[in-house]
Amino acid sequence: MTEDVPELKSLIFDGNGGTQKEILAAAFEALHKHGYSELTIDAIGDEFDKSQSLIYHHYDSKDELLLDLLRFITDYFEDLTPESHMSNPRDRIEEFVETAIGLSERDRTAIGTLIELRAQAVHDERYREHFVRSDKAIQKYLADEIRDGIESGVFQEVDAESVAVWIHTVSIGAAFRSSTADDSWVETNKKEVQDYLEKRLYR
Amino acid sequence: MTEDVPELKSLIFDGNGGTQKEILAAAFEALHKHGYSELTIDAIGDEFDKSQSLIYHHYDSKDELLLDLLRFITDYFEDLTPESHMSNPRDRIEEFVETAIGLSERDRTAIGTLIELRAQAVHDERYREHFVRSDKAIQKYLADEIRDGIESGVFQEVDAESVAVWIHTVSIGAAFRSSTADDSWVETNKKEVQDYLEKRLYR
Repeated sequence: MTEDVPELKSLIFDGNGGTQKEILAAAFEALHKHGYSELTIDAIGDEFDKSQSLIYHHYDSKDELLLDLLRFITDYFEDLTPESHMSNPRDRIEEFVETAIGLSERDRTAIGTLIELRAQAVHDERYREHFVRSDKAIQKYLADEIRDGIESGVFQEVDAESVAVWIHTVSIGAAFRSSTADDSWVETNKKEVQDYLEKRLYR
Repeated sequence: MTEDVPELKSLIFDGNGGTQKEILAAAFEALHKHGYSELTIDAIGDEFDKSQSLIYHHYDSKDELLLDLLRFITDYFEDLTPESHMSNPRDRIEEFVETAIGLSERDRTAIGTLIELRAQAVHDERYREHFVRSDKAIQKYLADEIRDGIESGVFQEVDAESVAVWIHTVSIGAAFRSSTADDSWVETNKKEVQDYLEKRLYR
């Protein structure tokens, strides 16, 4: 493992779990380092503390392993629920926007890993089905937060699904741009998104 | 060439041009059909009407050819200018949003080709520099349109750069989602974006 473990990765792979989870964490690290086209099972083995033969025991191919990694990450997104004990819905929506739209350098490289996997979905239905599922999970999480905020009176009476779809789409755009171009536009975009939420959502 | 030539492609490759442009058009077609990882010079040759040896005469590798394709497409974006003789700025912004955000099935597959090339930028600086350039070109085009609209009184006195950055980011998000997941969210997102432009930009 490199020292520069991206935050997203440490969030998803929280440290406990068996061999299979360790293989997936190694794959995430190797993908982050080499990129999809240069990724090999050998390169994953280099990030894995146990015997490389264990990887071949669990997986027949690189794509089979990566699809399992995606299943794992999507499960993580599906388990996201509003953490109403921690803060109020407005803080949580603001935090989501801040994280997704004003990506830090470290998050950006971790997101790049997901971006590369997502791009496989252009030509591979097996990848596509994971992103259909994770998009729905993230939108549901956002819509639940928004409904919470409407109920507690901090948000306007908006169509929660509609605002959730929009926040998710602009977040994906920001993540894709951040990991494939420069960041000259990041602050301007964030301000525009915040202004929009002030007018459209927040009371 | 297949019969299903995407509209974006016919727009960029307008029919006249020498052997090199024909090679690039064949590469676009082959990439669209096979995807980046499965793409070979042989597959490009299958879409090319002349001798395959001409491709090797011009290019040493798949990436060299694809980077030239990107240069060509980016030049196209840089040449975009407000077509003020054709319609008013509001119609043109609406058309841009309609095209970029409510992608037709045909456009979506063509955009998928660009999405795959863009994803290479996560790990390849040579790809990244093209997308930095094309993002700037598209934002400049949008900002020019917005300034036109402010001058002619159809738009509010907004920060043209800021709105342009935002429109481009949400368009990229929509294009990336469309080509890598389902389209259950497309109409909802389009309506939200249109509502935003009603409030923020249009008079």
